Amino acid sequence: MSTRVEQLLRKRFTFHCENAEVYGSEFAALWRSTADHALGGKLVRPRLLLDIHRALVSDAAPEPSIAAVDVATHIELLHYAFLLHDDVIDGDLTRRKRPNLIGELAATAPGATEEDSLHWARSSAILMGDLLLSAAIMGFARADVPQSVRVRLLDLVEQTILETVAGEHTDVALSHGIIASDVATVLTMSVYKTATYSFSLPLRAAALLAGSSESAEETLNTVGRHLGLAYQLQDDLLCVFGDHRKHGKDAFSDLREGKETAIIAFARSTSAWAQIAPRFGCPDLSLDDAAAIRDLLQECGAERFVVSLIGEQLDAVYTLLSEAEAAGEISSDAARSILVSASQLEGRQA
Amino acid sequence: MSTRVEQLLRKRFTFHCENAEVYGSEFAALWRSTADHALGGKLVRPRLLLDIHRALVSDAAPEPSIAAVDVATHIELLHYAFLLHDDVIDGDLTRRKRPNLIGELAATAPGATEEDSLHWARSSAILMGDLLLSAAIMGFARADVPQSVRVRLLDLVEQTILETVAGEHTDVALSHGIIASDVATVLTMSVYKTATYSFSLPLRAAALLAGSSESAEETLNTVGRHLGLAYQLQDDLLCVFGDHRKHGKDAFSDLREGKETAIIAFARSTSAWAQIAPRFGCPDLSLDDAAAIRDLLQECGAERFVVSLIGEQLDAVYTLLSEAEAAGEISSDAARSILVSASQLEGRQA
Repeated sequence: MSTRVEQLLRKRFTFHCENAEVYGSEFAALWRSTADHALGGKLVRPRLLLDIHRALVSDAAPEPSIAAVDVATHIELLHYAFLLHDDVIDGDLTRRKRPNLIGELAATAPGATEEDSLHWARSSAILMGDLLLSAAIMGFARADVPQSVRVRLLDLVEQTILETVAGEHTDVALSHGIIASDVATVLTMSVYKTATYSFSLPLRAAALLAGSSESAEETLNTVGRHLGLAYQLQDDLLCVFGDHRKHGKDAFSDLREGKETAIIAFARSTSAWAQIAPRFGCPDLSLDDAAAIRDLLQECGAERFVVSLIGEQLDAVYTLLSEAEAAGEISSDAARSILVSASQLEGRQA
Repeated sequence: MSTRVEQLLRKRFTFHCENAEVYGSEFAALWRSTADHALGGKLVRPRLLLDIHRALVSDAAPEPSIAAVDVATHIELLHYAFLLHDDVIDGDLTRRKRPNLIGELAATAPGATEEDSLHWARSSAILMGDLLLSAAIMGFARADVPQSVRVRLLDLVEQTILETVAGEHTDVALSHGIIASDVATVLTMSVYKTATYSFSLPLRAAALLAGSSESAEETLNTVGRHLGLAYQLQDDLLCVFGDHRKHGKDAFSDLREGKETAIIAFARSTSAWAQIAPRFGCPDLSLDDAAAIRDLLQECGAERFVVSLIGEQLDAVYTLLSEAEAAGEISSDAARSILVSASQLEGRQA
């Protein structure tokens, strides 16, 4: 099913690349580079939407509806728009160990200085993020569904963008120490910044497109928040405690960047923090120093704490789905389909 | 009429400020600061839409339609979204001699270093720009008009965003010397970056909302490009040759920032450039040096050239409107209303 999304994504980018030529070769080149990077994703969000949508529609059509593929595709564009602006804000030049769009543009810019090249690359990423954000909203506004569904899809994407931006804003405030870091704040931030658009949005869109009840949509919203938080916490654990040969992230990059994760927020409340603080967030943190911090994070109970948090999220998902199934709110097919997504999350290595 | 736009803008911002509280006090504070800055504009674009809309509707209702006020308001939000991202890209901290949103946020940030404060302020502006861009598109997607009109409004705003971003991208490329500066490139860039959203968009939206013919809309599109280019060229002239006590821009800021205007593009093709080049774009350009560059730009014919370009744009507007009026494409009321806007432009001091 994700092949249909990939085909549509390719088609949209081909159109945009050709359409951009009239505005000059540099602008067309920006579209082509963007297409290269945006098409490299795992399509987690569109897949989730289409899997759950198939499980929710009663007549079990073998092919997903055109509207579902269309909305799923535009969720991927929204994801990439957020990534671009996120990378500008975080100063990231790589993603999964390869140059991201900004890194590539900066490396190939004929700029006189490194600062010039970075400015050119980041400005381009801000502008392309604007175009993809617009394209994503347009996709929702033009979805080939009854007007009443389209109105709800628009409300959904608006609320999603607001929460994601609010989460990102809190994340930046945390990284600057403008908001004090504690576990509750970091968890709320993660739900807004990641869970809302990556999990609740595809699940709720699937429910809307499948004609599910509003209570089913609300349940899926909550399920999405728990799944998304579990996903983010898993990601945080992998970066610090994972096997770096198996997953795509740079070893210990969160520790080097001083990222305010739940692991760190917990550690801050323990006596181990005095030993961690001096080296946390050093851009040139050595592998040995990082490993020492990792061991401290393990000993102070931060790893255990976050593992148990993930367990709580998944328990909440099981409970919510069982209740919804018992109440006839969602089918057992749909519940099983979500649990499959959840279980893939649990064993995730990469 | 613009009072209605101002009221609606205030109402929208009040809603967003209150709604933001749930995401934390920093996020709500960002919305409040944004409201302060965004509400300070002259509402040139909404006024243009409403003036022309009133002239285009045959039944001459004393009050503009709710849809027209609504779309006009969302064009102002689009304008402010573009300003925010433009200010991030240009590194601007002031607008009309006062701190802009970024300048205010940076000045009040409890950041440890100036770099920290600027990063916080610029990240906030990127994120707020995303929210306002989304809000603007949502306004078009939800306009209370027949579906066929809404479809055309969506196409219009999509095309507008694409052209504006393409123009801004070219402007950044020009400032980095990635695209060579010549008069034709600079004029095309100005049309895309400024004229499309500031003039063609309000004029075309007015035509769409008034139920004008597609050929009338196309004429107004071309009229908007000429008017917008005249407006930008006038702005360029004011910054270099204007009376800085009367207009709001910083004296000679374009010369200090090395902005690739039509004045500069023309001067580059003259023998005077050798004398201008060494000091053009120096951030610490003195008033005396700036005045010397101004005199050289006058002597080499750049001022005269741009003045005549403005004349050409306004001539084109007169001709287009006369032809459209003669063909019964637009009413003489509408033509007169546009000419009034154009004449206000000609005598503009600020």
